[in-house]
Amino acid sequence: MRLALIGAGRIGKVHARTIDLNPEVTLAAVADVHVEAAEALAQQYGVRAISAEDMFEDDQIDGVLIASSTPTHADYLERAARSGKAVLCEKPIALDLARTREALRVLGTHPVTCALGFNRRHDPQFAALKRAIVDGRIGDLETLTIISRDPSPPPAEYVGASGGLFRDMMIHDFDMARWLLDEPIVQVQAQGSCLIDPAIGEAGDVDTAMVILVTASGRLCHINNSRRACYGYDQRIEAFGSAGMLQASNETETRLRFTGEPGQVEEKPKWFFLERYAEAYSAEIHDFVDAWQQQRAPLAGAEDGLEALRLAEAAQQSLQHRRSVSLDEID
Amino acid sequence: MRLALIGAGRIGKVHARTIDLNPEVTLAAVADVHVEAAEALAQQYGVRAISAEDMFEDDQIDGVLIASSTPTHADYLERAARSGKAVLCEKPIALDLARTREALRVLGTHPVTCALGFNRRHDPQFAALKRAIVDGRIGDLETLTIISRDPSPPPAEYVGASGGLFRDMMIHDFDMARWLLDEPIVQVQAQGSCLIDPAIGEAGDVDTAMVILVTASGRLCHINNSRRACYGYDQRIEAFGSAGMLQASNETETRLRFTGEPGQVEEKPKWFFLERYAEAYSAEIHDFVDAWQQQRAPLAGAEDGLEALRLAEAAQQSLQHRRSVSLDEID
Amino acid sequence: MRLALIGAGRIGKVHARTIDLNPEVTLAAVADVHVEAAEALAQQYGVRAISAEDMFEDDQIDGVLIASSTPTHADYLERAARSGKAVLCEKPIALDLARTREALRVLGTHPVTCALGFNRRHDPQFAALKRAIVDGRIGDLETLTIISRDPSPPPAEYVGASGGLFRDMMIHDFDMARWLLDEPIVQVQAQGSCLIDPAIGEAGDVDTAMVILVTASGRLCHINNSRRACYGYDQRIEAFGSAGMLQASNETETRLRFTGEPGQVEEKPKWFFLERYAEAYSAEIHDFVDAWQQQRAPLAGAEDGLEALRLAEAAQQSLQHRRSVSLDEID
Amino acid sequence: MRLALIGAGRIGKVHARTIDLNPEVTLAAVADVHVEAAEALAQQYGVRAISAEDMFEDDQIDGVLIASSTPTHADYLERAARSGKAVLCEKPIALDLARTREALRVLGTHPVTCALGFNRRHDPQFAALKRAIVDGRIGDLETLTIISRDPSPPPAEYVGASGGLFRDMMIHDFDMARWLLDEPIVQVQAQGSCLIDPAIGEAGDVDTAMVILVTASGRLCHINNSRRACYGYDQRIEAFGSAGMLQASNETETRLRFTGEPGQVEEKPKWFFLERYAEAYSAEIHDFVDAWQQQRAPLAGAEDGLEALRLAEAAQQSLQHRRSVSLDEID
Repeated sequence: MRLALIGAGRIGKVHARTIDLNPEVTLAAVADVHVEAAEALAQQYGVRAISAEDMFEDDQIDGVLIASSTPTHADYLERAARSGKAVLCEKPIALDLARTREALRVLGTHPVTCALGFNRRHDPQFAALKRAIVDGRIGDLETLTIISRDPSPPPAEYVGASGGLFRDMMIHDFDMARWLLDEPIVQVQAQGSCLIDPAIGEAGDVDTAMVILVTASGRLCHINNSRRACYGYDQRIEAFGSAGMLQASNETETRLRFTGEPGQVEEKPKWFFLERYAEAYSAEIHDFVDAWQQQRAPLAGAEDGLEALRLAEAAQQSLQHRRSVSLDEID
Repeated sequence: MRLALIGAGRIGKVHARTIDLNPEVTLAAVADVHVEAAEALAQQYGVRAISAEDMFEDDQIDGVLIASSTPTHADYLERAARSGKAVLCEKPIALDLARTREALRVLGTHPVTCALGFNRRHDPQFAALKRAIVDGRIGDLETLTIISRDPSPPPAEYVGASGGLFRDMMIHDFDMARWLLDEPIVQVQAQGSCLIDPAIGEAGDVDTAMVILVTASGRLCHINNSRRACYGYDQRIEAFGSAGMLQASNETETRLRFTGEPGQVEEKPKWFFLERYAEAYSAEIHDFVDAWQQQRAPLAGAEDGLEALRLAEAAQQSLQHRRSVSLDEID
Repeated sequence: MRLALIGAGRIGKVHARTIDLNPEVTLAAVADVHVEAAEALAQQYGVRAISAEDMFEDDQIDGVLIASSTPTHADYLERAARSGKAVLCEKPIALDLARTREALRVLGTHPVTCALGFNRRHDPQFAALKRAIVDGRIGDLETLTIISRDPSPPPAEYVGASGGLFRDMMIHDFDMARWLLDEPIVQVQAQGSCLIDPAIGEAGDVDTAMVILVTASGRLCHINNSRRACYGYDQRIEAFGSAGMLQASNETETRLRFTGEPGQVEEKPKWFFLERYAEAYSAEIHDFVDAWQQQRAPLAGAEDGLEALRLAEAAQQSLQHRRSVSLDEID
Repeated sequence: MRLALIGAGRIGKVHARTIDLNPEVTLAAVADVHVEAAEALAQQYGVRAISAEDMFEDDQIDGVLIASSTPTHADYLERAARSGKAVLCEKPIALDLARTREALRVLGTHPVTCALGFNRRHDPQFAALKRAIVDGRIGDLETLTIISRDPSPPPAEYVGASGGLFRDMMIHDFDMARWLLDEPIVQVQAQGSCLIDPAIGEAGDVDTAMVILVTASGRLCHINNSRRACYGYDQRIEAFGSAGMLQASNETETRLRFTGEPGQVEEKPKWFFLERYAEAYSAEIHDFVDAWQQQRAPLAGAEDGLEALRLAEAAQQSLQHRRSVSLDEID
C-alpha cells in the first residue's frame, strides 16, 4: 500500500516513522499547510512533499493518513472518500456531531476503507484484555473501570480549542468503554472539577473528571480522568465479572527493581503516549493496511468516532445540568 | 476496662476473642436475647451470662460493646449513655436518620465515650494510607477511588431487612471517603444494577453500584461496590494527588508465589472481613479503651455514623431520581 | 501445659509474651542467672522467679523453655530430660558436635518431648512452601535457593563467641535446606569473605558467604548469607522443580504502595526476626504443646540440631581447604 | 555500514531481520554452506547469496556477521580480520582455549572492529542494572546471583557437540558475571547433576548446575543453571551491595493480570531468547556499527570470549575434581 501523510507535526512524525518501519506499506508523500514542515519530514524519508490537493488526484497513492489539525479532519476525510482512497484519520472527525454526521454521509455514498485513530484498541495489553473478555475468562462482564491520566496539563489556550476534556481526552476512554462493554450505553453521569490549573477553569473546562456509564443490560462503567499525573501516563483498565477480574496495568521501560532506602522501588510508568503506545501505532497501521487489502472493516471506524462523540456530548450535558443524561437525548 | 458484650452472634464472637487477647481490657459479661448463645459464649471465656438490663445496672461494668441485631442498636446505645457507660456500637446506629439523630441527642445530654464500629479506619494499611495523605505524601488530594466487593451475596431476605446496599454495605465506603477526603461532601451521584441475584432486585435493591461524591473544594471520589467477587473480599483504595498516588491493596495469607502452568500465581485475596480485618478489630478495641482512659474522642464516633447514613440516603435518592443529589437536601 | 522459662533476655522476652497470649499453655516461672532480669520478667506476667535448679525439681512444671546463653543449653537440656520434663531448647544445643552428641545420648536414655528452636519451619509462608512441595506442586524438586541476610552485623566480639557465621547464622538455612530437600545431603562447598566489617575478619570469621549443597540424588541447593542488608531482614526461598517454581518472599508491614518521584514504591521488608517471625514463634509454642500432649515428635528436634551442625562443620572445612567436603568426613 | 551475513540458520535469520529494520546498516549479502538456505534468506531481503570466500574479497562489504556453526567461527573470524573487515561473531569463538587464543593473535596483528555476540549485555534491563551499579546505586557491590534456565533441554546429541553446559550455556552467565563484577575472578567452584534427561548424563554432561565465583577483592557470585524450566526462559540477576539491592526480573508479553480461581495470575515469562532478547539483538547491531564508525571497542569483544571460556574450563575442572579451581591454573 502506498500511503500519503497529511500533517507533519508531532503525531504525523510518529506515523511517518511507523510507516517507514513497516514493510507492508510505503510512505508515498507528505503534505502540510506549513510547507517547510512537510518538506523536512519528506526529505527525512526520501519522499516527495506535495499539497494535499495533489494527493487526492494522484493515482500512485492508495490511501491517506490524516494527521493534520482537528478542524481539517472532516474535509480531508470527505475528499479522500470522494477520490476513492483508503483513509486512516486521527480522531476526532470533528468536534461537533453535525459535522461528524455529514462526513459519515459522504462515506456512506463513497465507501472506502476508513479507519479512525483510536490507537488504544491496538495496544497489545488492552487487546489481550479484550480477547480474554470475549473468551469468557471473567464470565459475564459486570463493571469496568478506566483510569486515564495525562502526565501534565496542556496550555489553557489549547484546552479552549480542544472541545474540552470530554471531547478531547475522555473520548479515548469512551471508545474503550464502548469496545469492551460491547452493548449500547444508555445513561451517562458526569462530574468534573478544576483542581490543577485555574486557567483551564477560566477557559470553561475541567481538568479532573469522573463519569459513570450504564449499558442497556445494567453494566456499569467508571471513567477517571486527570490532566496531570506527576509520575507519568496512567493508563489502566479493570474489568470485573462473575468469574473473576482482569487488570491492565501501566508499563515501565524495564522491570529493574531497587530495594534500599526508600523501600522496594520499581520504575515510574512510561511517560506519555509516544512511549506507552508505540506498539499500538504500529499495530494500527498494520490493521489499516490489512483491512484495505482484505476489504474488511478496520478495528475502529468512522461510526465509532461518532458514537464516542455522542458520549462526550452526554457527559458535557450531565456535568452542566447535574443529572443523568440518556443517550436518546443526544442526536 | 471491664467490658460487657451484647450479642453472641458471628461478630460478637469476633469481639469476644479480641477482648480476650487484649490485656488492656477484661470481658466482664455476655448478653444475648438468645440466652443459650450468651451462655455458650460466656462459658467459653469463663464469664457470666446476664441480661442486657442487668448490665446497665452493674457497677462492675465500665463499658458495653453492642454487637446485637441492627434494630436494637439505638436503644442499647441510649441506655448505655444514660447509665454512664462507655459504649462501642457496631454500625449502623439505626437504618433511618430520625432514629439516629434521636440517639445522638441522648448522647449529647449524657456524654460518654462512644465509638462506632467503622472497623476499616483501624485497618493498618488504611491507617497508613491516611497518615501518608495527612503527611502530604501525595501533595493535595484530588481524587479517591474506593473498591469494595464482598465475596458472595447475602440471601435476598437479608437484603430486605438490611436497608439496602447503600445503607448496609456502601456505608463503610462512605465513612472511608469522609475520613480520607477530610472536608464536606456536597454532591452525590449514584447508579446501581441488579446483575448477580434477581431475587435482590425483586426485594427492591441493587447488587452492583457505582457512586461519585463531590466535596466542597471539588475533590472527586468514586465508590465501586459488588455483592459478589468470586476471588474473595476485594478491598482497595487509591488516593491520587498533585504529588503522587497511594494504593492500598488486597492482602493474602502468605506471599508465596507459584510459577508454572497457569502463569505466575499469587494467592487469592483473604476471603472476607474476619480474615482481612482481624487486626482492625483488635486496634478498634485498643482505640476504644484508650479513648475512654484518656477521655478523648475515639477514631470513629456516633456523628460519623449519622454522616455516613446521610450519604447513603443521598445515594438512594440519586439512584431513584437519576440526578445528582445535594447533601443540603438530606436532613 | 505449665511451661517454665530459662533466660530473660531478648529472645526469652519474646517467648514469655508468646506463651502469655497462648491459651494452651501457662507461664509457670522464670529463671535467669541475672536474678533481677528473671524477677522483672516474672513480675510482668505475675509469676514466680525461681532458680533453674528449683525448676527441675518442681512437680508443678511440665516443661521448660531454654532461652539462656548458648554455652548453657546442653546442660539444661540434659537436666530437663533427666527430670522428665518436656523441653523446647533454643538452637544450638552446643557449638561443637561432641557436646551435642552427648546431649542426644542423654535424651536417648531419658526420652522426653524435645523440640529445637528452628523457628523458621513454623513461619506460615515457609510452611506453605513446604506443603506445596510435598503436594507435588512443582513436580520433582531439583534446586533450592535460600537467601538469608541480617539487617546489620553483630559486634565483632559477639562473632568470636558465636562459633562463626556457619554455626551461628547459616545454621538456620542448613536446617531449612534439610527440611525442604528431604533427603541426605552428601557434599558441601563453601566460600566466604569479609566485606562488611574488618573486625569480623580479624576475629577469624566471614560476614558474607555462599554455599552449595548436593543431595544423594543430585539435587542442588544454594545458600546466600550476608551479615548486613541495609533494607532489612532478607529471608527468601526459591524451590525449583520439574513442574514449576515456588518463591517465598519478604514481607512488609502493609501492602501500601506509593507512586511518585522515586518510582513505584513498596515498603521495605520487615526489619528483623522479631517482626518477620512473630507468627512463627507462636506456632512453635503451639507445636511444642501439641507434640507433648499427643506424644508425637515436634516439627524440629534435637537430631535436627545435630545434623544442621554437621553441615556447618562441613562448610567451615570446605571454606578452609577450598574443596568440596563429603558429609561422611564429618563425624 | 554494508554488512554481510554468514549463516542462514535460526540465529542468522534473527540477525537478517534485525539488520533490515536498522537504518544505520544495510544487509549486503548472505552466505551459508547450505546454498539453498543462503539463497532463500537472501531473496527474502532482496540481496545476493554469495560464498563466504567472495565476501572477504568484496570491496563493497564493510563487515561480516558470523552466525554459522560453532566450529567455523574461528576460521571466519581470522579471515575477516585478515581482509580488514569489521566482524561481529556469534559466541563462542571456539570451544577450546588454544584455538581461541590463536584467533586473538590474528586479531592482534590485523586489528579490526571485532564484537562478540554476548547479546545479554545489550538487554535494556541488564544494561540498566549495569548502569545502576556503576552509578553507585547499591554502594559497594558484594554479591551477585545469576539465574539462567532454558525452557527445554536440547537433544542429547546436541549436548555432545556443544562442549557441555559450562561452555555452551553458562558461558553467557560467566560473561555477565565478569561484566557486572568488574574485577578479576580468582576462584571457581562448580557442582552439577543430571536431573532432567538421562541421555545428557550418558553424553557426559550435566543439565543442572550451580557455581560460585570469587573475585580478587572477595566478592561472591552464584550462578544457577537448568536446561529445563517448564514455565519459560528464566533470566534473572540480583546484585546486592552495601547500600541496597537491584533485581532484574523476567519479562512477560503484557502486564495483564487475572484474578479468579487459581489466584492472582500474571503471564508466564517470555518463552525463549528470541522473545526475551529481541531488543538486545537490535542494540547489539547498533553498538557494533557505532563502534566501527567511532573506531572504539564494542561492548563485548574477542577477549571477553576468551575470559568467559577460561571460567567455563575452571568450572569443568572444579566439577570433576570436587575442589575450588584457581583461575591461575587455567591457561
